[in-house]
Amino acid sequence: MARLRGLVSGALLAGSAVAQTSTFVNPAVPTHTPVPGNYTGALRPQVHFSPPQGFMNDPNGMFVDANGTWHLYYQYNPTGVVAGNQHWGHATSDDLYHWVNQPIALFPPEERVYVFSGSAVVDANNTSGFFPDQDNGVVAIFTLARYYEDGSGGPQTQNIAYSRDGGYTFEYYSENPVIDSTSSHFRDPKVVWYEDHWVLVAAYAQEFVVGIFTSPDLKDWTFASNFTQHGLLGAQYECPNLVKMPVRDASGAVIDEKYVMTISIQPGAPLGGSVTEYFLGDFNGTHFTPTDAVTRLTDFAKDNYAAQFFYGVPDGQNQINLGWASNWQYTQKVPTGNLEGWRSTTTAPRVNYITEAPRIGLVMVDEIYDLSPILDNKLKETTCDGVGTVALDYSSVESGALYIEVNVTNINTTLLTEYSTLNISFASPASGDILQSGFYFSGDTPFFINRGGIKGFDNIFFTDKFSVADVYSSGSRDTLASWSTKAIIDRSIFEVFVDRGIHAGTVVFYPSQPLTTLNLASRLPEGTSVSVNIWSLKSAWAEYENEDGTVVGNVTTHEKSAEKKGKAVYKSKFTV
Amino acid sequence: MARLRGLVSGALLAGSAVAQTSTFVNPAVPTHTPVPGNYTGALRPQVHFSPPQGFMNDPNGMFVDANGTWHLYYQYNPTGVVAGNQHWGHATSDDLYHWVNQPIALFPPEERVYVFSGSAVVDANNTSGFFPDQDNGVVAIFTLARYYEDGSGGPQTQNIAYSRDGGYTFEYYSENPVIDSTSSHFRDPKVVWYEDHWVLVAAYAQEFVVGIFTSPDLKDWTFASNFTQHGLLGAQYECPNLVKMPVRDASGAVIDEKYVMTISIQPGAPLGGSVTEYFLGDFNGTHFTPTDAVTRLTDFAKDNYAAQFFYGVPDGQNQINLGWASNWQYTQKVPTGNLEGWRSTTTAPRVNYITEAPRIGLVMVDEIYDLSPILDNKLKETTCDGVGTVALDYSSVESGALYIEVNVTNINTTLLTEYSTLNISFASPASGDILQSGFYFSGDTPFFINRGGIKGFDNIFFTDKFSVADVYSSGSRDTLASWSTKAIIDRSIFEVFVDRGIHAGTVVFYPSQPLTTLNLASRLPEGTSVSVNIWSLKSAWAEYENEDGTVVGNVTTHEKSAEKKGKAVYKSKFTV
Repeated sequence: MARLRGLVSGALLAGSAVAQTSTFVNPAVPTHTPVPGNYTGALRPQVHFSPPQGFMNDPNGMFVDANGTWHLYYQYNPTGVVAGNQHWGHATSDDLYHWVNQPIALFPPEERVYVFSGSAVVDANNTSGFFPDQDNGVVAIFTLARYYEDGSGGPQTQNIAYSRDGGYTFEYYSENPVIDSTSSHFRDPKVVWYEDHWVLVAAYAQEFVVGIFTSPDLKDWTFASNFTQHGLLGAQYECPNLVKMPVRDASGAVIDEKYVMTISIQPGAPLGGSVTEYFLGDFNGTHFTPTDAVTRLTDFAKDNYAAQFFYGVPDGQNQINLGWASNWQYTQKVPTGNLEGWRSTTTAPRVNYITEAPRIGLVMVDEIYDLSPILDNKLKETTCDGVGTVALDYSSVESGALYIEVNVTNINTTLLTEYSTLNISFASPASGDILQSGFYFSGDTPFFINRGGIKGFDNIFFTDKFSVADVYSSGSRDTLASWSTKAIIDRSIFEVFVDRGIHAGTVVFYPSQPLTTLNLASRLPEGTSVSVNIWSLKSAWAEYENEDGTVVGNVTTHEKSAEKKGKAVYKSKFTV
Repeated sequence: MARLRGLVSGALLAGSAVAQTSTFVNPAVPTHTPVPGNYTGALRPQVHFSPPQGFMNDPNGMFVDANGTWHLYYQYNPTGVVAGNQHWGHATSDDLYHWVNQPIALFPPEERVYVFSGSAVVDANNTSGFFPDQDNGVVAIFTLARYYEDGSGGPQTQNIAYSRDGGYTFEYYSENPVIDSTSSHFRDPKVVWYEDHWVLVAAYAQEFVVGIFTSPDLKDWTFASNFTQHGLLGAQYECPNLVKMPVRDASGAVIDEKYVMTISIQPGAPLGGSVTEYFLGDFNGTHFTPTDAVTRLTDFAKDNYAAQFFYGVPDGQNQINLGWASNWQYTQKVPTGNLEGWRSTTTAPRVNYITEAPRIGLVMVDEIYDLSPILDNKLKETTCDGVGTVALDYSSVESGALYIEVNVTNINTTLLTEYSTLNISFASPASGDILQSGFYFSGDTPFFINRGGIKGFDNIFFTDKFSVADVYSSGSRDTLASWSTKAIIDRSIFEVFVDRGIHAGTVVFYPSQPLTTLNLASRLPEGTSVSVNIWSLKSAWAEYENEDGTVVGNVTTHEKSAEKKGKAVYKSKFTV
């Protein structure tokens, strides 16, 4: 959560406002009922989470419960389409694509005290004492940020709230804060379990320090160590995560495990604004020791910030994260606010493990999470020998969302030239908007994305071109090499997972007219096998829409709506 | 020096080719005489070094001799406007702006063996034994890169050559290589003197290792240590430099000294392609120990690579560097090749020391080197109270080059809003080409550059927008803050030195028509003092032109030409 620029007073919503004794609720903010949203807008992603209306930034409090329900909270301004008035919005999912909007989970405790980013854990063993009779108690750990009347920032402290209904409603702990501070830049606690105690990492943002704390009960926290002055500094450290994940060999077998420390930087990323870097290392319960002094980035483009790993993924398994697909440099200006009343989407869910990239060494992989719940029709399945093209009109795909897989095998690297390329572009024939991507197979081997041909939005910080060097083969001249990429396009967000996810690129874009054609061109040497598969994706939101196109989010309305449409009812774990 | 994509055989030049016994000279390459050049092209920088014709990349062998003459060698393809056929071009200067093109200094020793990047030192004490009767002997240390007939790369070894005429002509050492290798990616030796021995750093490019070697005599080298796995890796480490420089406090007083290790990364920079990172630390003669694990970048844009520090700057003084103002992603495509027969310019000379940036900590500063030799008329000297504009038509400035200083003082940071900006743009009213830059004084405080409005060149990797977060005040709300920037624009290169040089940004751009108007707009709170000074710059090349506009470079022709024009003769230290 970055410094707020200004506090927003405009009321967008007409919801039922029920004042609570423990929190300060803006009369315009609905309680106990989900915020309704219209997900039909031309720019609205159909297989990504975005808030029903208003402004979203960092994902928060992410955990998976014992029933397999994924909980996503998020930095939320329900009363405006710019940052301010921060609450924790909430949504749940069984598959990480179909999301049910839940009532807002955390409200400001006082006027001018906001609920900034943080995390949540399931306290199954009742270490906190909040849950004497249950094993599904949830504790949220987050920053409360005070702002003075003149708009300046007061102290940021770490606080907890507990939920006895599995994460839907929370009560503030009476003895908050659990980590006090006089700093106005101490925030974003992320908690994990380590053997016999809780571990919290939080950012002393302007000192470039990640503080590591331990606790037996989530209430009493002891300072353990600092991780500081690593990697790119930018102008602030934010949203640290500490997570253990498997190290896999090329066959996918687990050969080790390592900790990953992610740190989000804002402002001051190399590409401008916001970016996330990560460090590989070991963790002994109190100290994180990096494996090396290498600075690795989670994304080669500009729209993947503040990603959080879900709490509750079983030990030894791949981790799963979602990021905020935006950048503070322009997030408050993008056209979805004025045109459709919402701003910001999450990334698609990503599966993470560590592997050895050819020549480069250990990297964290971002793979796309199982898409089967939203895979629709296979629109194209084709192979070619080196040279080939695919031209696809997907204007009939209602969601406007596609999934693309390209596998290139039998690459004789000695035959490659600077013209050996594979290009994928998406366009609107109506308006001429075009989004380009592609890969150069020789020399510098960059994968590129260019959103400069997209006409619906520009801004002095809205960088057009991104690229990454992908060393996809080990450089041997005598071995046939392979390369692959996977990509999702979803109305206003494009994500690529290059070379088995060794590189991920996330860009938002705002076309003046919907993109409806895909063109793919392969110019590779004879003998190279190029396989292309393209699926349409089902809208994960359309089935929840009522006759007005509104997703109300609560179960009653959803069931009604789904029945009306004759579709299978999506079962929320939330029972009212 | 990056991997060559292909070897170029096309002959651009009709020069006098004198075969030497010790080197393989392409008949098209002139020896013993400078390559002539036409520096009048609309895209040709007038106060920067660019090669007379052909293709230049990394600066090499830079040193200053006892007479104060600055020697610049450079990776040079004299027979084409793309990389290949690498020689060491050579130029000399008394002031780092006026350059005299000298005869090519190093030629390939054999067919298909090229002279890649390296450095040079003055062996005043004749440690090498090459210079029994003189104290101005020069030893060049460089990579010889062998290419096989099929274009694949063979071994890269470290070699030396010596010059008994002060650096103008060289003879290869008979016992080369001085550091042998079977690696095809071991290159770019940079040598400095440490107390009682020579120290060489070179890149094992694809292993992300900087090897550190020591020698008493520049001939016998002993492995000392490796510096490895630090910072951003990209896909290769190149062109390491190790240099000592003063640490200065805010008043400019020297309070300490530190070593800086620079490493150039190519490909795989965060912005794509080429970038240079640096590490602060200590050096004990054999080992470099970094101060911290922070990754710092020398430039926030995309066109400053492979910078080298001049050998011979007296101990305790600020260091001086020049970079290659380009990027391998597009350097071989930029329009100066087809339009004007040359490609690539150096950056302006920069003065370097270390200082404490507010909140961020220690950084290396890039200040522009003394401009007085090329400062022409002061075109504008104005101040305003917060809000003001400057509109300047500089179409009458023959060089097309300007120097701009902006000093902003008495900034009451509590009055700043997101609209508090200072913008500087350059445009061609004829064509609509526009280059934008500016600073946002509040919040994320980014300085930005946008070359997206420049119409003479585009390319899938030619990124449009760059920015950097400049924390120019320490954040106190009660102190009046100050901020400044300096900038040079020179036909097709723009360089900014933000906030006393704490950040430097270098961009090349290729307008379809010359930029001839400057617009500056300040929107700052009342009470803020904004001071703007703009000078035209004298062409450093025009005075060497003969009646045809050709700069021949050798002294005889130069003197003739200068006399003809009635200008002061620029005295080269090179006596034929």
